[in-house]
Amino acid sequence: MAAITDLSFMYRWFKNCNLVRNLSDKYVFITGCDSGFGNLLARQLVDRGMRVLAACFTEEGAQKLRQDTSCRLQTTLLDVTKTESIQAATQWVRDQVGEQGLWALVNNAGVGLPSGPNEWLTKEDFMKVINVNLVGLIEVTLHMLPLIKKARGRVVNMSSSGGRVAVIGGGYCVSKFGVEAFSDSIRRELHYFGVKVSIIEPGNYRTSILGKEGTVSRMRRLWERLPQETRDSYGEEYFCNCKQVKMY
Amino acid sequence: MAAITDLSFMYRWFKNCNLVRNLSDKYVFITGCDSGFGNLLARQLVDRGMRVLAACFTEEGAQKLRQDTSCRLQTTLLDVTKTESIQAATQWVRDQVGEQGLWALVNNAGVGLPSGPNEWLTKEDFMKVINVNLVGLIEVTLHMLPLIKKARGRVVNMSSSGGRVAVIGGGYCVSKFGVEAFSDSIRRELHYFGVKVSIIEPGNYRTSILGKEGTVSRMRRLWERLPQETRDSYGEEYFCNCKQVKMY
Repeated sequence: MAAITDLSFMYRWFKNCNLVRNLSDKYVFITGCDSGFGNLLARQLVDRGMRVLAACFTEEGAQKLRQDTSCRLQTTLLDVTKTESIQAATQWVRDQVGEQGLWALVNNAGVGLPSGPNEWLTKEDFMKVINVNLVGLIEVTLHMLPLIKKARGRVVNMSSSGGRVAVIGGGYCVSKFGVEAFSDSIRRELHYFGVKVSIIEPGNYRTSILGKEGTVSRMRRLWERLPQETRDSYGEEYFCNCKQVKMY
Repeated sequence: MAAITDLSFMYRWFKNCNLVRNLSDKYVFITGCDSGFGNLLARQLVDRGMRVLAACFTEEGAQKLRQDTSCRLQTTLLDVTKTESIQAATQWVRDQVGEQGLWALVNNAGVGLPSGPNEWLTKEDFMKVINVNLVGLIEVTLHMLPLIKKARGRVVNMSSSGGRVAVIGGGYCVSKFGVEAFSDSIRRELHYFGVKVSIIEPGNYRTSILGKEGTVSRMRRLWERLPQETRDSYGEEYFCNCKQVKMY
């Protein structure tokens, strides 16, 4: 009986050791807070008493988030594909956190489309996704690093199970594989400064990453712009099967 | 004794089964033939009697290659970061191969620099490498696909051991991780058309991928453009150790 009590005590002690304390002093900057994981995380961290600096892509998203939360959450607009936008957001974060630095950066902003069989896509389709999910994530991290190092903070990068296995065509898995590489490389570099780098690899969740348009109409648009030669090589039957593949 | 003869016969039979025949009819398009692996491969395939379509980045590289080889090798200029250049190269290949299509595409063109600790680099540094190694490779593949499908050919993508483990900072490993994703995804799609996709993952070889400038002066250039705050956080000692790291 005594042994069980000891074990229970040790379990609780160990669990408490790992709890983050003084949440109300800590600043977390999250990108892509308009919807999905970023939006949920911002709300949850505010509820736990943290100071949340939420970056949204649209003013509409930012306004809705501010309305629904407390003054511990502040918003800014951020387009991670634009250097000037990242510079402005970095200055804003610097002004908020002051000398204490940034306790956490969560690189959550991401897009999933265009997606489809690789041959149906163009360089521009790939770039749209790579620019947000990979290059945007890298540039935001590079800009925020001095603030994170000051707080001996952490970086959390939103990768994906698609960052391990290339399950779909287009820029999504390509960019998420790249996020894995960047995160691992910078993780080792920042260890020297007491900064941790983590990744999250979610599976399939019903977020709005695939937009409002249905799979069938998205696939039809891609199909219709293909040259006749390419369409003939796939055949109507392939297209019909493809429309039913939910992952696209 | 009879068993050994049988085994020897079966071994030779099996080995011959896997030999590619009629090499002199087959066209191989290789990117990045100015130097390194691409240059070596072009020369070797010509020696074996294949028809080599060698894409070089510089006229100088193309001229040297033509001088050293036979009329079975032809060259074109190609900058894989420019859509118009890829379109022109595709038309040139189409004119060469005619109705028989392209037996193999070898996506070899690649760069390794700028490379260094991630925090010492900018978005532009990452983009320089990603645009060649990843986006260029994707766009060349997409353009050549109709010709490859016609011949039920193959695509060979030059990845790297750095496409599995992110050993250095900068765009190199990031882009090679992406190449792994793209190759695996398109490999499954092209199986339907009898087209094979392979990757090559070389380790450290003495090619000219790191340019002519020495590691020390490259690292010094990166170091000197850093803001004083960042330099102070690393310290002179870190910089001196870093200069000695051959991998950068």
